Amino acid sequence: MKVAEGCERLSLNQITTKGWSLEEAVRGCVDAGIPAIGLWRDKVAEAGLARAARLCRDAGVAVSSLCRGGFLTAGDETARRAAFADNLAAIEEAAELGTDTLVLVVGGLPSGSRDLVGARHQVADMMGELAPHAGDFGVRLAIEPLHPMFCADRAVVSTLGQALDLAEAHPAEQVGVVVDSYHVWWDPELEQQVARAGAGDRIASYQVCDWTLPLPADALLGRGHVGDGHIDFGWLTDRVAEAGYEGWIEVELFNEQVWNTPGEQTLATLKERHRTHLVRR
Amino acid sequence: MKVAEGCERLSLNQITTKGWSLEEAVRGCVDAGIPAIGLWRDKVAEAGLARAARLCRDAGVAVSSLCRGGFLTAGDETARRAAFADNLAAIEEAAELGTDTLVLVVGGLPSGSRDLVGARHQVADMMGELAPHAGDFGVRLAIEPLHPMFCADRAVVSTLGQALDLAEAHPAEQVGVVVDSYHVWWDPELEQQVARAGAGDRIASYQVCDWTLPLPADALLGRGHVGDGHIDFGWLTDRVAEAGYEGWIEVELFNEQVWNTPGEQTLATLKERHRTHLVRR
Repeated sequence: MKVAEGCERLSLNQITTKGWSLEEAVRGCVDAGIPAIGLWRDKVAEAGLARAARLCRDAGVAVSSLCRGGFLTAGDETARRAAFADNLAAIEEAAELGTDTLVLVVGGLPSGSRDLVGARHQVADMMGELAPHAGDFGVRLAIEPLHPMFCADRAVVSTLGQALDLAEAHPAEQVGVVVDSYHVWWDPELEQQVARAGAGDRIASYQVCDWTLPLPADALLGRGHVGDGHIDFGWLTDRVAEAGYEGWIEVELFNEQVWNTPGEQTLATLKERHRTHLVRR
Repeated sequence: MKVAEGCERLSLNQITTKGWSLEEAVRGCVDAGIPAIGLWRDKVAEAGLARAARLCRDAGVAVSSLCRGGFLTAGDETARRAAFADNLAAIEEAAELGTDTLVLVVGGLPSGSRDLVGARHQVADMMGELAPHAGDFGVRLAIEPLHPMFCADRAVVSTLGQALDLAEAHPAEQVGVVVDSYHVWWDPELEQQVARAGAGDRIASYQVCDWTLPLPADALLGRGHVGDGHIDFGWLTDRVAEAGYEGWIEVELFNEQVWNTPGEQTLATLKERHRTHLVRR
């Protein structure tokens, strides 16, 4: 495939074009000259695992990550074992798809529980069990700290510092972190934690989208195109570069309006914003 | 006034009974046996400053805090001087009302700006100017870290640790911090930062309300009665007590449904939740 000018590091996270099948998304990347894609497991399952891997390989589109494993905070042992098995499956899928990065959204409080400290310990325990398996498959578990407004229902890992505390209990090739602009931009320790992540070779992925206001009725869907909101992408991208990260910059948009836009148009916007805000000189 | 059993430390933050005038809120506290009230400046202005002070004093209702100063992140010098003058006025009002605690919501990004680092520096600069004046009036500026989802539009101070970094540049009697459950409950460093705040005698106020889901259309209004959400108040209240804080526990609810409930009924709920979740043995 021919890569679009200035887009050598751009990756389309597949949720951004939610209406597209995996096949359509890979075709869209080729047509737009976007060299990589972050896949979602439900879309991979729809396409069939072996076929999905072949589609990407044949098209020459790199798989930057697989979304997602995690949800490790189950309330009882049965659910815990199910979560473990599901994460093992996700690790194998990542390996087959040819990506070394499995994004983990660790899960929120177990239903009815207010034991946040306990839930965080459970995540640490589960990471201890999963990390060696990831290592066996050459896959790195990428812990994604989610914005603190998702602490109760999605991820009890809320800061980059906390994600690094968890990751550093394991070899860097087994566990890393995701730096997602939307989730971490507000953090007063951001500069220092990005540097720490880089120094330890822990940055597994750099994901971008913008913080726009007002928050929508479903707070999950408030992410805007890079440049439409309040995040200083020049500043953040320079910090990530200084930390030594030279990998993919993946655009992950949960946004009803973007989802209702034709995929080709969304990809054109992605390229334009990438060139304007993320290619640094 | 006769204090309701178990409610010796309970304070009604006036925003919780938004429909009430200051006079009605003071009367409501007396009737319910709630010994303290956190006042809001707009309601004080409505009642008249001297009259508001007298109403509280005559009723024997303590003023636990005044809400609020802050909004220090103005974009230009004119707005900056106006913010400074407004905070001086707030300090004097707090002194006249007989409270030693002026809550500060520091302000979000200046309009059109993405310079979060710069805005945070500006807050630090303004604190340096304001703190001695507060000291002159025997008032303590209580920096309130707001939940990170308010970073862009309301408060660039997002964590207790960051608030303490700002406060510790000044004498403890001039600048403290607010521990508000809603804003800090998710913080992985919460236990250690509450202990740090206590060790330095920096806890100026303990405010409570619960994190409930889903977030409402206006994210500002999502705060629930203590016990209705995901926060472990036993755990948090024990940490605050271990830190040596023995002051008021102020209930501050931004919630349309609560605002549409008769004030007497809201105060009855406050007392019941206080006894159940906040009185520790």
